Amino acid sequence: MRPSRDLFLEDFAVGQRFETEGIAVTEADIIAFARQFDPQYFHLDPVAAATSAFGGLVASGLHTLSLAMRVFFELNLWERAIIGSPGLDHVRWLIPLRPGDTIRSMVEISAVKRSRSKPDRGVVSTAHRTFNQHHQVIFTMTCLHIVRARGAG
Amino acid sequence: MRPSRDLFLEDFAVGQRFETEGIAVTEADIIAFARQFDPQYFHLDPVAAATSAFGGLVASGLHTLSLAMRVFFELNLWERAIIGSPGLDHVRWLIPLRPGDTIRSMVEISAVKRSRSKPDRGVVSTAHRTFNQHHQVIFTMTCLHIVRARGAG
Repeated sequence: MRPSRDLFLEDFAVGQRFETEGIAVTEADIIAFARQFDPQYFHLDPVAAATSAFGGLVASGLHTLSLAMRVFFELNLWERAIIGSPGLDHVRWLIPLRPGDTIRSMVEISAVKRSRSKPDRGVVSTAHRTFNQHHQVIFTMTCLHIVRARGAG
Repeated sequence: MRPSRDLFLEDFAVGQRFETEGIAVTEADIIAFARQFDPQYFHLDPVAAATSAFGGLVASGLHTLSLAMRVFFELNLWERAIIGSPGLDHVRWLIPLRPGDTIRSMVEISAVKRSRSKPDRGVVSTAHRTFNQHHQVIFTMTCLHIVRARGAG
């Protein structure tokens, strides 16, 4: 589907798919993120990381998750309609993100549920599969989004 | 429990609790994180955010999640024992994180399962409740960690 900034709850249906742009990650990006949020040696120190189970520097899983969200938001599916996000489910890191990798996601609408108590909105669930440049799925998650119905103001 | 850098799989038991240190977040922190990973207006622009459902600038949920992980890692529960993380479950944002807030987490061991196929390791699950300075639970999640057994090398 062609992205738009004007999608509302009624515009989503289970099975719709959106492909994101790609984004590249450098060693410097990985280390900078890890210093702020996840200072484990295999995210910080390429030499020490070589002795880890990963065999080299890998991005914090939080970094992979944050980049997966960034490419999703860059689809600009909504602007007026988004209210917020209640959460994420089944976040899974399958293959590490390494320096020089480029990732992109395929995002599929996995559920659309109008609220019973507040029918001017509903929850749209998005199932994300994030691929590296070798077409391997490195990361998956499901995000929940509270989205306004059209004309809800 | 008193944190240590030397905990292994056998050292964890369901019900153990660890309290993290606190961390404060500024408006500048919130905007800088959002620019990188979650450029939605209610995370970027205090004036526009006042018209959102949040009534003011709020941190990206990813930022809250990343800070919750940071204070957890700062407990330094393990260093030699950690292999990596397979994922997160039931990530829920309950109350927004706002400029000037200070958060801390209570982390409880919710499951410890030795691997059948690789008995030198197992999965430790941690249930996180993150509080603001008003003692409100603003965020919860469960993290999975692959942890080496003692003497596994």
